[in-house]
Amino acid sequence: MINEQYKKMLEGKSVIRQLSEFATARGKEIGYENVFDYSLGNPSVPVPEKFTEVMIDLLKTKTSMELHGYSPSLGIPSVKEKIAASLNKRFDMDYTGNHIFPTTGAAGAVAHAVRCVTKPGDEVLTFAPYFPEYNPYINMSGAILKVVPANTENFQINFEKLEEMLNEKTAALLINTPNNPSGAVYSTKTLEQLAALLKRKQEEYGHDIFIISDEPYREIVFEGVEAPYVSKFYDNSLSCYSFSKSLSLPGERIGYVAVNPRCTDAELISAMCGQISRGTGHNCPPSIIQLAVAEVLDITSDMSVYETNMNLLYNELTSLGFSCVKPGGTFYIFPKALEEDAVAFCQKALKYDLVLVPSDSFGVQGYFRMAYCIDTEKVERSLTAFRRFVKECY
Amino acid sequence: MINEQYKKMLEGKSVIRQLSEFATARGKEIGYENVFDYSLGNPSVPVPEKFTEVMIDLLKTKTSMELHGYSPSLGIPSVKEKIAASLNKRFDMDYTGNHIFPTTGAAGAVAHAVRCVTKPGDEVLTFAPYFPEYNPYINMSGAILKVVPANTENFQINFEKLEEMLNEKTAALLINTPNNPSGAVYSTKTLEQLAALLKRKQEEYGHDIFIISDEPYREIVFEGVEAPYVSKFYDNSLSCYSFSKSLSLPGERIGYVAVNPRCTDAELISAMCGQISRGTGHNCPPSIIQLAVAEVLDITSDMSVYETNMNLLYNELTSLGFSCVKPGGTFYIFPKALEEDAVAFCQKALKYDLVLVPSDSFGVQGYFRMAYCIDTEKVERSLTAFRRFVKECY
Repeated sequence: MINEQYKKMLEGKSVIRQLSEFATARGKEIGYENVFDYSLGNPSVPVPEKFTEVMIDLLKTKTSMELHGYSPSLGIPSVKEKIAASLNKRFDMDYTGNHIFPTTGAAGAVAHAVRCVTKPGDEVLTFAPYFPEYNPYINMSGAILKVVPANTENFQINFEKLEEMLNEKTAALLINTPNNPSGAVYSTKTLEQLAALLKRKQEEYGHDIFIISDEPYREIVFEGVEAPYVSKFYDNSLSCYSFSKSLSLPGERIGYVAVNPRCTDAELISAMCGQISRGTGHNCPPSIIQLAVAEVLDITSDMSVYETNMNLLYNELTSLGFSCVKPGGTFYIFPKALEEDAVAFCQKALKYDLVLVPSDSFGVQGYFRMAYCIDTEKVERSLTAFRRFVKECY
Repeated sequence: MINEQYKKMLEGKSVIRQLSEFATARGKEIGYENVFDYSLGNPSVPVPEKFTEVMIDLLKTKTSMELHGYSPSLGIPSVKEKIAASLNKRFDMDYTGNHIFPTTGAAGAVAHAVRCVTKPGDEVLTFAPYFPEYNPYINMSGAILKVVPANTENFQINFEKLEEMLNEKTAALLINTPNNPSGAVYSTKTLEQLAALLKRKQEEYGHDIFIISDEPYREIVFEGVEAPYVSKFYDNSLSCYSFSKSLSLPGERIGYVAVNPRCTDAELISAMCGQISRGTGHNCPPSIIQLAVAEVLDITSDMSVYETNMNLLYNELTSLGFSCVKPGGTFYIFPKALEEDAVAFCQKALKYDLVLVPSDSFGVQGYFRMAYCIDTEKVERSLTAFRRFVKECY
């Protein structure tokens, strides 16, 4: 019997995907190089050459069984140990391989983490503006996603609203720093204040409250900005990482959950992730991809273009009169639209072949997101379109 | 708050894994070459050279974005079309790319398929002896797995028991031919009889009953045996395939669901799989692995060793007095133990360094499974151990 719930989900279409499809279709009319497609966060810089070399080397030197045989369902031990060692060195943590659970990207990591630390009906709080895919990741686990309104001053945390929304049913907070879509990076002060509040609330409610920290943009931080490591501030924390952005390989679906060694049941959570994977038939990520990323843990793609693009856009947009919090990282910028209705604003921009995503699906009204992981040359040309758009429409 | 359900699941340990760990530990004492480890179904023959060549070629010739960029969440269209074309050619079907949903192996395929065609509380029937991982795949979806007792005469379907167990709540049947652990291949007669029964029951109950056909061993069929394609017999069928066994790359987690173009909502089911994947954060399999298998769809590893091993074991075991249905495919054999208690039997065999899996976890008592995906030379040496074991213990 066909499952009506999943069938019904087909009706809702992602706004981002629709815009991306529009951009592709428009590209066929006028040439894709003439569409200023800021819709999708698909990294534009190439994978590091070293990654390709490692892959070829694995294919040429390992036996079939070593390379393509079953990986243990909790991941390949040597890979987990290397990830732990790299995190310990960079962030002064004390992970062991046992605290690392390899996943299919940060999406897989968040989906596993939430199942470990909630039961159906529990509440998970996240903060606007937020990545809209958090809705399926959380709600399809049985937990309920609630959104704390934005602090639009600087896109740090709105603590007043957070404190109002915390309650006995709160099992976890899902945070994302550096943030998609705002580009904001949570400061040490924000993380200290968050940790202090949660410690108090854990005592008050008499149960754990976990931080699930979604960190795919951890390595994309701009000059002069400090990006503190979330798990340094709070024991009950699970770091969810993806190599998609730092190594430019989103298609290869590789990341991990790093379980804070000081959290409740720290020694069990990786194994619990393994049980969750059994039920979804996902098991662990492909063995060759696990083995390859383990050899390039301490390098990234050359991501300097993102900062160049950010500065170009930030300077032009603010000089055109846009109100905008300067991004500290990621490849997103999140300016205020020039009218209250961001959907109408982005609709008008399409006439100038500017593909911008209205903020509504990120849980905030009146803003728009630009994913500037595109060529700088194209960003520069888009500025002319922006000037015309603003001059003619506002 | 730690999820107690997943935590509790850690207490149950897979018998197969425990035996495999025993074999590894014993191997450290006496040399692994002296342990007759028949526990795990990890293919022993190498991946086809062509697969390795294709991977290296992709890495050397494709741009980073083409190779490692986001795959559409329903899979790469060109890959899906090639899989459809290959199936159409081989099995006279009429799949389009839209009917193919790439997954992380057959496990991922079954886990998606069951969610598409059941709702929580629905019953899924499978047939003893069966792969024990069906329990998490089905039960963690919210559906309930029920096991139809074995037809021990030939390990075809026990239709009498099946008819007793079919009821209004039956949403799907999960079948596995060629079968793990029995090695049996369902005959045309079995599949015709099954299809006729289900068509009658669909009418009687006024709702669809799907066949979820788990087919990782589809390409491992022995001389003189015909392995009919399940979806030729019954419209409401979903084929779940894995390249793990045919290409010897279980670690790379690649397979697919092929939706029968004549089933209910055939045009929607792939997209529904995509929605299910969103919720588990799994999305589609890695892009490079999708692209690589699409180039080797019509070849397999050299799997002749499995038939050689099967014949050696079958001949020796039957001459030693074991009662045994001759496998038609796979790399498993499932003889009757020489005493009623298969656990006790397998325990005694360990003294001869014969690692056999008792049948209890496969839903049948009094049998044992041997996974003979090992070197023929080792199979030959194990026969001496078998002779001593039988002579001294029975």
